[in-house]
Amino acid sequence: MNHSSADQDCDSTQMLHYLSKEEAVAMEMELLRDYHFGLHQLTEILGHACAVAITKTYPLSTLGKRQPTVLVVCGPDQNGCIGLACARYLRLFEYMPTVFYPKRSSQSPHLDFTVQCEKMDIPFLSYLPTEVQLINDAYNLVVDALLGPETELGTAAEPFTSIMLTLRGVKIPIASLDIPSGWDPDEASIDGINPDVLISLMAPKRCALSFSGIHLLAGRLLPYDIQKKYELNLPKFPSTACITELH
Amino acid sequence: MNHSSADQDCDSTQMLHYLSKEEAVAMEMELLRDYHFGLHQLTEILGHACAVAITKTYPLSTLGKRQPTVLVVCGPDQNGCIGLACARYLRLFEYMPTVFYPKRSSQSPHLDFTVQCEKMDIPFLSYLPTEVQLINDAYNLVVDALLGPETELGTAAEPFTSIMLTLRGVKIPIASLDIPSGWDPDEASIDGINPDVLISLMAPKRCALSFSGIHLLAGRLLPYDIQKKYELNLPKFPSTACITELH
Repeated sequence: MNHSSADQDCDSTQMLHYLSKEEAVAMEMELLRDYHFGLHQLTEILGHACAVAITKTYPLSTLGKRQPTVLVVCGPDQNGCIGLACARYLRLFEYMPTVFYPKRSSQSPHLDFTVQCEKMDIPFLSYLPTEVQLINDAYNLVVDALLGPETELGTAAEPFTSIMLTLRGVKIPIASLDIPSGWDPDEASIDGINPDVLISLMAPKRCALSFSGIHLLAGRLLPYDIQKKYELNLPKFPSTACITELH
Repeated sequence: MNHSSADQDCDSTQMLHYLSKEEAVAMEMELLRDYHFGLHQLTEILGHACAVAITKTYPLSTLGKRQPTVLVVCGPDQNGCIGLACARYLRLFEYMPTVFYPKRSSQSPHLDFTVQCEKMDIPFLSYLPTEVQLINDAYNLVVDALLGPETELGTAAEPFTSIMLTLRGVKIPIASLDIPSGWDPDEASIDGINPDVLISLMAPKRCALSFSGIHLLAGRLLPYDIQKKYELNLPKFPSTACITELH
């Protein structure tokens, strides 16, 4: 093992690579198939890192409302499951998350992470108010885990279109996980969410080039060989941090 | 949900509870059965937290040797699997871990976490030198994940007895995961390891009352209801930290 050469391979002075949808899918497939990562494991790592990213960006002490409320909007894909894990960690970090999870998945990670939230006494909303003022008044911020890179836009029909319409009207900050809901991983979309914060998972996707808000990278797990193969040139994570800033 | 009462239930001025072996087994069973945590998930959380604990206690900049080498000794039980996850995170945190894992388990988490280490180019030793000076010279510290609370002492025959004998002779620091190998969860044992650092996982076990070294708690995951049921009275974890000090 040559320790110093691994560092040189990830030289932070080289250009950060923004993954295409195809590359992102291939990279995750490799992690699952060749590196034996499990979906529960990846979801846990990424959900934790997202909650850390949110805590660093919106610390408890800076929240405007009396209660540290956060609305976490979860979809039926992997992105939504990471949202569920994120909600559980936000509760452990002493926030008061509420989950809105309108289209439940019957996949094993979703079922397990839902039970874990319910058993943490995290409330689940049965519907999202269409009156945005109610959302602005009730929550300090929204975590958008509705639609992810793997969601085909063609399937993004109801209730997702209505939810995105509502979220586009809220005045409180929105933090999107991996890509803003409604965007294609390869490009921005005016029909999607316009978040204040984008939390890229493992590596940024190409659409993030069109994003001008606060941009964080969450999830420190990629083996050096994968980083090299996809020429990611990720920035260094400080010490034991699981998040870092992207520019 | 009553947010403030949850905090009061975990009042840090109350006495920390040290779990008996029976309580530790029952608590983990509840996490798996009622809270739908998975073994991969728990192993990932705890392995990560152990690597953070080791990094905080022995930062890269303070290591005596030219290379940041760490020997991680893993057994066939859950403790050993957490050691494998810890080794992977130590590599991500830029240490140079080497794993010694003499009795491999055929259980799914062990197999997956072994592949993840191998794919991170972490070397596996085929035998442990009996000449302790070789260990003292080659490594900065040892992580002891050989025998855990679930290991029956009756089964701790070879190669474990010889490995413990060797490790009792090393001069470099040893950090034990959950309990020092060879100890019973309920009490210390003179036949076991005498670590410099004890990293209790989720909650301290009763034998830790006999331990006088550096004592850390790793793994911030316990639902508030579990903490209350077992009257753990855990200290507060600062901000988003996954470890905290115990006294």
